[in-house]
Amino acid sequence: MNCSIILFDGFETLDAFGPVEGIGTLAKALEGYAIEYYSENGGMVVSAQNVRVETLPMSGIGEPGIVLIPGGMGTRREVNNEGLMRSLWDLCERAQFVLTVCTGSGLLAKTGLLDGVRATSNKMAFDWAVEQGPQVQWVRRARWVHDGKYYTSSGVSAGIDMSLGFVSDRMGEPVARRIAHGIEYLWNSDAGDDPFYRESQ
Amino acid sequence: MNCSIILFDGFETLDAFGPVEGIGTLAKALEGYAIEYYSENGGMVVSAQNVRVETLPMSGIGEPGIVLIPGGMGTRREVNNEGLMRSLWDLCERAQFVLTVCTGSGLLAKTGLLDGVRATSNKMAFDWAVEQGPQVQWVRRARWVHDGKYYTSSGVSAGIDMSLGFVSDRMGEPVARRIAHGIEYLWNSDAGDDPFYRESQ
Repeated sequence: MNCSIILFDGFETLDAFGPVEGIGTLAKALEGYAIEYYSENGGMVVSAQNVRVETLPMSGIGEPGIVLIPGGMGTRREVNNEGLMRSLWDLCERAQFVLTVCTGSGLLAKTGLLDGVRATSNKMAFDWAVEQGPQVQWVRRARWVHDGKYYTSSGVSAGIDMSLGFVSDRMGEPVARRIAHGIEYLWNSDAGDDPFYRESQ
Repeated sequence: MNCSIILFDGFETLDAFGPVEGIGTLAKALEGYAIEYYSENGGMVVSAQNVRVETLPMSGIGEPGIVLIPGGMGTRREVNNEGLMRSLWDLCERAQFVLTVCTGSGLLAKTGLLDGVRATSNKMAFDWAVEQGPQVQWVRRARWVHDGKYYTSSGVSAGIDMSLGFVSDRMGEPVARRIAHGIEYLWNSDAGDDPFYRESQ
């Protein structure tokens, strides 16, 4: 079983590396789990905050267990990258669970896999996400949304809350609370409690 | 002016990549600022969550403006790495500001630069940090501590709060609040409010 983090140039650093705290602890706890970083063709990927991360090619993912897709300005370019979209469709269609953070849900929506599924995205680019998948049941007021095998979160930090919610669903809330305590994080554990939603939006 | 993030094998991913959201925004806002990732000798560094990050050698840092030192299990090995300790002393002695997260304060304490300075560290390894610098004025109950040019935070997520506090001190609280809002983060803006402190510790 694999935890596959999908990266691309211009991904938002914290979108990817917040949730790996929760998912990484899950990976350590479950024998045979591995956390690995992938991009369309492998090689070096540069985040929006200039972090250069070495990645493996997505074609090398055998059994996709958990897939995490971050957001970031790079998503605006990648929705038009047909190669990545095809690879993402194939990967996420086979995956056991797919988690997105921020505008990562826009990438997933563009594959069509979220059609008819309840999902959310970040506040600042919500309309852009909607444009990528008009058939998605978009939820504007949510810290994160869980529908079937899909977990989608709103902006950046919400990804940490969602990843702990995901751990809680898999291994029980005490495990998630222990992880949050270990990283001294005040977990917003209510997926529906969205302090950044404004009625005017 | 440089924002230099110092990495080493086994650094805690979120310790480094939480604060770069705040510092990165500061870097973008100020002309001539650059955020860059360094290690003792440069090359690939692997985090505790298996992220492989390409780094430059610390010897290449010219004018150290802001230096950030994350924690993580790798710190237990690195306090005995005399080469890194010498480089860190030289770098932090010259730096305009030094920020540490979690057990990163143990590394800084070991250089001696924190002697007589008020500082904090994370809850789970506080006594280890104290051993690295018995002359430091350790503060057990703090989300983060600011003393002169040094900012030290408690565990992992506290680094995000501290980095926003640092931005607030440099550019004003409205800027820090805007960043927090942009990343949909509930900022614990009170350095003294430490929800993870227990009297029994």
